[in-house]
Amino acid sequence: MSKIRVGMIGYKFMGKAHSNAYRALPMFFPKVTRPEMAVICGRDAVGLEQARAQFGWEEAETDWRKLVSRDDIDLVDINAPSDAHKEIAIAAAEAGKHIFCEKPLALNLADSIEMLNAAEKGGVKHMVGFNYRFAPAVQLAKKLVTEGRLGEIYHFRGFFLQDWIVDPSFPLVWRLQKEVAGSGAHGDLGAHVIDMARFLVGDFKEVIGMSETFIKERPLQAASSELTTGLSKKGDIDAPRGQVTVDDATLFLARFANGALGSIEATRFAPGHRCTNSFEINGSKGSIKFDFERVNELEVYFTDDADDVQGFRRVIATDAAHAYSDAWWPAGHTIGYEHTFTHEIHEFMTAIAEDRQPVPNFVDGVECQAVLEAVDKSIEERRWVSISELR
Amino acid sequence: MSKIRVGMIGYKFMGKAHSNAYRALPMFFPKVTRPEMAVICGRDAVGLEQARAQFGWEEAETDWRKLVSRDDIDLVDINAPSDAHKEIAIAAAEAGKHIFCEKPLALNLADSIEMLNAAEKGGVKHMVGFNYRFAPAVQLAKKLVTEGRLGEIYHFRGFFLQDWIVDPSFPLVWRLQKEVAGSGAHGDLGAHVIDMARFLVGDFKEVIGMSETFIKERPLQAASSELTTGLSKKGDIDAPRGQVTVDDATLFLARFANGALGSIEATRFAPGHRCTNSFEINGSKGSIKFDFERVNELEVYFTDDADDVQGFRRVIATDAAHAYSDAWWPAGHTIGYEHTFTHEIHEFMTAIAEDRQPVPNFVDGVECQAVLEAVDKSIEERRWVSISELR
Amino acid sequence: MSKIRVGMIGYKFMGKAHSNAYRALPMFFPKVTRPEMAVICGRDAVGLEQARAQFGWEEAETDWRKLVSRDDIDLVDINAPSDAHKEIAIAAAEAGKHIFCEKPLALNLADSIEMLNAAEKGGVKHMVGFNYRFAPAVQLAKKLVTEGRLGEIYHFRGFFLQDWIVDPSFPLVWRLQKEVAGSGAHGDLGAHVIDMARFLVGDFKEVIGMSETFIKERPLQAASSELTTGLSKKGDIDAPRGQVTVDDATLFLARFANGALGSIEATRFAPGHRCTNSFEINGSKGSIKFDFERVNELEVYFTDDADDVQGFRRVIATDAAHAYSDAWWPAGHTIGYEHTFTHEIHEFMTAIAEDRQPVPNFVDGVECQAVLEAVDKSIEERRWVSISELR
Amino acid sequence: MSKIRVGMIGYKFMGKAHSNAYRALPMFFPKVTRPEMAVICGRDAVGLEQARAQFGWEEAETDWRKLVSRDDIDLVDINAPSDAHKEIAIAAAEAGKHIFCEKPLALNLADSIEMLNAAEKGGVKHMVGFNYRFAPAVQLAKKLVTEGRLGEIYHFRGFFLQDWIVDPSFPLVWRLQKEVAGSGAHGDLGAHVIDMARFLVGDFKEVIGMSETFIKERPLQAASSELTTGLSKKGDIDAPRGQVTVDDATLFLARFANGALGSIEATRFAPGHRCTNSFEINGSKGSIKFDFERVNELEVYFTDDADDVQGFRRVIATDAAHAYSDAWWPAGHTIGYEHTFTHEIHEFMTAIAEDRQPVPNFVDGVECQAVLEAVDKSIEERRWVSISELR
Repeated sequence: MSKIRVGMIGYKFMGKAHSNAYRALPMFFPKVTRPEMAVICGRDAVGLEQARAQFGWEEAETDWRKLVSRDDIDLVDINAPSDAHKEIAIAAAEAGKHIFCEKPLALNLADSIEMLNAAEKGGVKHMVGFNYRFAPAVQLAKKLVTEGRLGEIYHFRGFFLQDWIVDPSFPLVWRLQKEVAGSGAHGDLGAHVIDMARFLVGDFKEVIGMSETFIKERPLQAASSELTTGLSKKGDIDAPRGQVTVDDATLFLARFANGALGSIEATRFAPGHRCTNSFEINGSKGSIKFDFERVNELEVYFTDDADDVQGFRRVIATDAAHAYSDAWWPAGHTIGYEHTFTHEIHEFMTAIAEDRQPVPNFVDGVECQAVLEAVDKSIEERRWVSISELR
Repeated sequence: MSKIRVGMIGYKFMGKAHSNAYRALPMFFPKVTRPEMAVICGRDAVGLEQARAQFGWEEAETDWRKLVSRDDIDLVDINAPSDAHKEIAIAAAEAGKHIFCEKPLALNLADSIEMLNAAEKGGVKHMVGFNYRFAPAVQLAKKLVTEGRLGEIYHFRGFFLQDWIVDPSFPLVWRLQKEVAGSGAHGDLGAHVIDMARFLVGDFKEVIGMSETFIKERPLQAASSELTTGLSKKGDIDAPRGQVTVDDATLFLARFANGALGSIEATRFAPGHRCTNSFEINGSKGSIKFDFERVNELEVYFTDDADDVQGFRRVIATDAAHAYSDAWWPAGHTIGYEHTFTHEIHEFMTAIAEDRQPVPNFVDGVECQAVLEAVDKSIEERRWVSISELR
Repeated sequence: MSKIRVGMIGYKFMGKAHSNAYRALPMFFPKVTRPEMAVICGRDAVGLEQARAQFGWEEAETDWRKLVSRDDIDLVDINAPSDAHKEIAIAAAEAGKHIFCEKPLALNLADSIEMLNAAEKGGVKHMVGFNYRFAPAVQLAKKLVTEGRLGEIYHFRGFFLQDWIVDPSFPLVWRLQKEVAGSGAHGDLGAHVIDMARFLVGDFKEVIGMSETFIKERPLQAASSELTTGLSKKGDIDAPRGQVTVDDATLFLARFANGALGSIEATRFAPGHRCTNSFEINGSKGSIKFDFERVNELEVYFTDDADDVQGFRRVIATDAAHAYSDAWWPAGHTIGYEHTFTHEIHEFMTAIAEDRQPVPNFVDGVECQAVLEAVDKSIEERRWVSISELR
Repeated sequence: MSKIRVGMIGYKFMGKAHSNAYRALPMFFPKVTRPEMAVICGRDAVGLEQARAQFGWEEAETDWRKLVSRDDIDLVDINAPSDAHKEIAIAAAEAGKHIFCEKPLALNLADSIEMLNAAEKGGVKHMVGFNYRFAPAVQLAKKLVTEGRLGEIYHFRGFFLQDWIVDPSFPLVWRLQKEVAGSGAHGDLGAHVIDMARFLVGDFKEVIGMSETFIKERPLQAASSELTTGLSKKGDIDAPRGQVTVDDATLFLARFANGALGSIEATRFAPGHRCTNSFEINGSKGSIKFDFERVNELEVYFTDDADDVQGFRRVIATDAAHAYSDAWWPAGHTIGYEHTFTHEIHEFMTAIAEDRQPVPNFVDGVECQAVLEAVDKSIEERRWVSISELR
């Protein structure tokens, strides 16, 4: 198969990010199977057509069921709101389409398991959008862990800090409504940290968490599905208000299967942090630190450096020795957030060509969901919860 | 009273730090009541005399009871090992001496309460050695919180990370033995973070923690009460081994009385972190970050900065506007760790002159101990524990 | 004109960067006139066809004269080696094509003036590729200067530090040969700093410089026109050697027309600096700092910040208040080096639509060349040289 | 000689710093010959007595000639204003006293040579106060250079940036008057950078500079010999004004005897820089960076680090492997600016005990003065000046 024809459902933030990745792949990775941007799908015909033209899709389609049933589509890319993932993914699996689904895989663990089962039954390739794995600096982190260069892992400390809703007049957008978003900071941001921990440290064993909604009511406002660009746009403080039904912040402690200790936090109430998705790992031979706001960098420390020059190194992961560097620019010329998606699509296209499941796939989506729910349960019942209780 | 005559018990790491502070105070704060370095006390006469001469004390005394009962001593400074604090403090209180006691105040909450009661009954001034409060950058943090410039506080994230015992051949020093040290990373490092949180955010309401001893046995070795300077000195890996009876790392989640969420960690297993005592606070109007390895700096962010120049500021707390700056050097000329103690003694001398209790005092020591024990209990019973359960 | 048909000459590093920008523009800036990727041109038919397919150009052409004379081409994009710029640009101007020429505009001032004259005579739009101006963080720098928020400018300190040829066995590539490259670090890197200084501070008045070639001979090797990705690839130390005929490093002092003082350095011998294109500006009301390795950030200091919270702010130029932010991702989601070119093309397309010259244009190319040559002359004659001596 | 009795002339900023060092030495370096704080000398009897009591000197003396002629004084410490150095130093040398003289050694090269000659003739030990050499992080820099771990040195980039007189209403203090201070930013700040370059790279060969006085007149005001603590205290903008007769900023390029290139700048007009005394050195095997505002840190890069983990390391020079660490605190517990002086006195006491000249001594003071004057001459004559022209 020299080309994979893609049908994409959703055309907002993630739709734009995915489209950009499909456009970039053949330019920067010409040897990889080329994804063809066949059909884009959304409910609002006007906005959809605008997106189609802008992003460069061949056709637009307002009915996702039609898209899924087309013979000329090989892969269905789902970045519609979270509450639509399950139905579409199962239909796609039944139609024998490969599936690229944004995170969170589903609104809850049970749904995500259904999706995984459907994908396995359909014999299709499936991938879940934990894009941060694909930053070259994170790939370097993985390499250092895998090669044992950090030794035995003792600690994982992961934080995803944002500040876009700190203003109490910021309106009640869909991301603050449980029935659509499933979860707040926990599922939106914490899910990324959980996946990062699983990627770099391994499976979770047990967790205990806490959660808070600091601003309990917010102005109702005409629908907007968009994230803000910049600090929180202020809303109308005098508008009628509705209930915020998701968490503003969720923190939890964890024990990993390998004995490492974890501390994880997701919050939208950390002023000054536009998008601090950061982690630190401490092992017996060294430590690493990452912060998404400096997505090209990894800080690295080794205990066996010469005694008088021990210190964290600031490694810019753009050298020839770093993942994906051949495709891009000379050393020191950084790439942006967007190409975590390009590398993700690279993995999916490569996996199809090699007839294997891409990584991360629905199994990872399910495992992440299990941890999310274990945390929720631990909060509700105010006790430690084993991941195995849920699976 | 124009002079306060001091008797100090203990002459190792903290004894040196305190002595230096007593020497520095009259030089840099000439208007403050002068502490006179009267008597230094320790068990080993040879080492003690060496310390006396080096640090500049008038006399040496090997029996702390004699020291406490001398008429010419106004203040007893206790920096002996933790298991000796209680007996000395109570004797000093009964003798009507003011007491400066290193942290942790005692090995457990009950003891610390006894000490507080004794001090109150004795009508003496009492202070506990939470020296980090006295870094000018931390004083700035306090000022920003107190003046409401960070708004309502949502998050406290505090970490004290060290790496001096990562090497498994590092010997079983007293700090790794529960009967002498009382606790490991939790009581040694976590106590500082707890006090910092209480200082800046307020009282704790409830906690839940986890703990681990990564290296369970270590080589026995001739006694050493000293911290290492530099990365862990390796010990003899083939020597007979003994059990490590304290925690290598303790983490906990917390809810504060004012509703803020806390995440606190203390570990000695974070390679690359010689002494990362750090915290971040997020409030509705701004955020602050501190790292002890850059003790003169505070990072500060305000939500109401102009839209196009929002970002964390690196403030070097050496300007005229910062605490204690008059005493020291021109702006940008940083001071060292040691002068957190100088400022601490400054507070004690000032409090005596003003006939008020210094801050932090034994009440703060007791409150800190209560949180430490609540965490211990939460680990043992695997559940959330209210601080009020213990008081 | 709703589309501009582009013919591009050169298909290596810069050809790839420009192609990417042409592809990105309609996706991210759909309202801007769309550049059509019509013809790509190069000498090697095989490599050219590969680039055409990879980058997405309609046709390939090995004769640049044919390309320039085609009726269906509106704009000629010149990123061939520097020694070819002049002839192509003049031909393009005579053919009435708009011209986008990479820097350095020409091998010397006289040639660059000829090019400017030809472009003006041809009545075409002309632009020169000083892409660093178009980083959002640099646009913020410009805004702060222009709005007077830094006050009167006192100092410009600019450094472009690289390390790709530190290894003495690195081969004698074309960039190290004067007849092809025109200049070494000075023209390649220093030119960018000079343009940045002109952009932010204004015209140069006089300069004095120094220069060095640290490694005077290098192994001859099969031709390669590519920059290395990563640290210097080692060459064959035993191969026959040739003379390095350009500077490894050039430094100069400058006085600007407005009285500000400048210090500028370009070197390829700064280990650890893959691509440190950095500057600092100090004015009477504040200072700013920029480092290309963190291309999304600008550090900003204001003298009128409150006394107790003065410090450099780390501004991540991805907020709504920052240039181009509407086109990209939510705040804190950084973009890469490559989009300095996208913004550059944005300026060119907009200028054509508005029937004005884009900025920077050949006048800026000429002025930059004048400063470069004044520095060369100052080195040769070991004296201060006025820019006016050369114009 | 088990004790050295010191007579110190001057009791302001440097007098305080030196006094503190004399007090600290026996406490932290008990094995080193002890300096006895015998006599402090100044013109104003009242202020002097206050300083005597505060700093802990035995006696006060208002006539420096009497001090110099006392039999019970072994060492004369000169930190009076620069215009008084020469006369005192020569008298001290003639009286056979060892001499510790603050930088700049003298107002000009000729005077400094006279001083050196007198000291040599008197057979006394002589030292000049380039205290920054004695920061442990700078000692580490020296070690790396000396051991060849940076390879052949290519570049020295040194900047001393301050901002205390940016406000035009800041008064005309003595440091802005040529007849007392000798020079402005150049002699005050640039001298330190020149010495650092000589210490780490070696002798200067030739220089060319530029200079500016941005604010040419300032309010006259009651005498103050003190540096400001904090950002510039504002003066009375309506007060009568006098001429500023020194440079606000001086920059120069340099060639070292070993072929390295240098770029050096001293300015008091860099807002946000309270005391940025910084340098970077690039060699064939690595690079180092230092910034006085983080006096305990050195950034270090090695070209032979493993390919995938290359980057600048942040080394905190408080490990056992670092200079002076035994005397201070555990690793990660930083020391302040003040102890550069303690280490300086350590060197002087040790040199006397070992009957050798301390380093840096008057020879270094003379060499520094030669470079300063060569720069001045190069500015005046607008040409490159060899250091050998002046010696």
